[in-house]
Amino acid sequence: MSINTLVNSIKKLGNPSVAGLDARIEYVPEHVRAKHFVEGRDLLTAVADAIFEFNCALIDALYDIVPAVKPQSAYYELLGPAGSIMLKKTIDYAKSRGMYVILDGKRNDIGATAEAYADAYLGKTLVNGVMCEPYGADCLTVNAYLGTDGIAPFLKRCGENGKGIFVLVKTSNPSSGEFQDRLMGDKKLCEEMAKRVGEWGSDLVTECGYSEVGAVVGATYPKELSELRAYMPKNYFLVPGYGAQGGKASDVANAFNDDGLGAIINSSRGIMCAWKKTDGVGRNYAQDARNEAIRMRDEIVSFIK
Amino acid sequence: MSINTLVNSIKKLGNPSVAGLDARIEYVPEHVRAKHFVEGRDLLTAVADAIFEFNCALIDALYDIVPAVKPQSAYYELLGPAGSIMLKKTIDYAKSRGMYVILDGKRNDIGATAEAYADAYLGKTLVNGVMCEPYGADCLTVNAYLGTDGIAPFLKRCGENGKGIFVLVKTSNPSSGEFQDRLMGDKKLCEEMAKRVGEWGSDLVTECGYSEVGAVVGATYPKELSELRAYMPKNYFLVPGYGAQGGKASDVANAFNDDGLGAIINSSRGIMCAWKKTDGVGRNYAQDARNEAIRMRDEIVSFIK
Repeated sequence: MSINTLVNSIKKLGNPSVAGLDARIEYVPEHVRAKHFVEGRDLLTAVADAIFEFNCALIDALYDIVPAVKPQSAYYELLGPAGSIMLKKTIDYAKSRGMYVILDGKRNDIGATAEAYADAYLGKTLVNGVMCEPYGADCLTVNAYLGTDGIAPFLKRCGENGKGIFVLVKTSNPSSGEFQDRLMGDKKLCEEMAKRVGEWGSDLVTECGYSEVGAVVGATYPKELSELRAYMPKNYFLVPGYGAQGGKASDVANAFNDDGLGAIINSSRGIMCAWKKTDGVGRNYAQDARNEAIRMRDEIVSFIK
Repeated sequence: MSINTLVNSIKKLGNPSVAGLDARIEYVPEHVRAKHFVEGRDLLTAVADAIFEFNCALIDALYDIVPAVKPQSAYYELLGPAGSIMLKKTIDYAKSRGMYVILDGKRNDIGATAEAYADAYLGKTLVNGVMCEPYGADCLTVNAYLGTDGIAPFLKRCGENGKGIFVLVKTSNPSSGEFQDRLMGDKKLCEEMAKRVGEWGSDLVTECGYSEVGAVVGATYPKELSELRAYMPKNYFLVPGYGAQGGKASDVANAFNDDGLGAIINSSRGIMCAWKKTDGVGRNYAQDARNEAIRMRDEIVSFIK
């Protein structure tokens, strides 16, 4: 699925947000877990199955109001191979519901190896004359510390397969400035990165006016959200850090262009753990997630110019 | 397994090199593949099984002369969940043969998520009161673009579990200078990164005099190998780019300290595909790999001061 389809969904649903799917067992209500923790089962497989049930219920509750999901790869990897199996099933299920799937993997490597990552997540691999799709996400977050030749294989696959990437530009964490805010000549490293993102994405601008190549810019740095836009007018921003990390809706409003587009705001814990603020046991966790997603949508939309 | 044990192995075997294990089916001789590609089997599983047989044979042929292996995660991920299952089996098998396992995953994220990566690869995760070890590698490559709070969870696990990390400092690819060589004040970004690596590793120096925290510095940049050492006297260098990428033994000699230690040189294709330069069909691919590993060892050792 291309960024063009995502933008159409965002317009249709009137919702520029993405639901993070962190595969954390502590986010899953006890009654869901209990069904899967059966004596004698492999524990990581039981966890993965419980989370998959939870993910599917969230997807069912969100797909007609939220255009995209963002599984965070780290939490799936923490479950070992059982987590990878469940990640693939989660991606498939979200796609079957028409959602755009952004895998948050922050992958990076030198050219030949970056090509393997690109094919693993955004492409296919040829085996004995048959094309196999390992994960089949729509979009992947990537880290460009290695420079252009580590990004080129991703750009190639984005162009060929109508897929996307979000390049880390200014991350939401407290230490992000340690390298990203340091001046290189008259520009900060994150500005240099932003400039490159604009260039890398220039050949991949789609019908909607936006490129398949976007940028990660944290909600926790509202000033940078505006400043970095100058370098990336046609690039979508994936904005983490809203809610639990402290980013406010008034802050993330800076991420949007004058057309009301150009950014997609992530919430993971806020939506997934909404049940912890209602009955606290998650009897209606999916409905609670939906209510929070609607609240978040309305709040963000109210701040967009 | 700690860097201290790795250094003891390096001394005992007189070999400061690591065998890369890229899970690429094109590196596996046809007669090995043929056993696994049976009509009706899932293709990615068949590929993974063929590569696992190949990996085990290489490990058997190398474990008494090469101290470490480095699976490149991208190629395992390219096989989908079947690749993750096989990665775990490969790590287990290499450890059972006493080899130090460096997973080349270049992982990175903000604090809470970096903790999940640290536990996935260098630690354990608590499930229903039971500690489960998802992958159990000894060491992981990481990317520090996000700064200290993205690295801190890895440092914590290294300290607690006697594990290691190699932080990307100066990578071996042609574009690595695009960001890494840019001046920030009077130092290049890679020097700033090197300085941090020295600091991050300072509390994790082991009996052998070296820290659990090392750096990735490419063989293709011999000048930087010497320059960056000044910032990281007690940090091991993981040196990719020898052989197929153009790095020579005379170049990698710069990576070593005066004690003849401080670096481990990687070769992937050179060892794995040694059979392509003998009979070309791989009748004795494991012996060919061993011969190349011995040749490489002798060549590198002859250049160390």
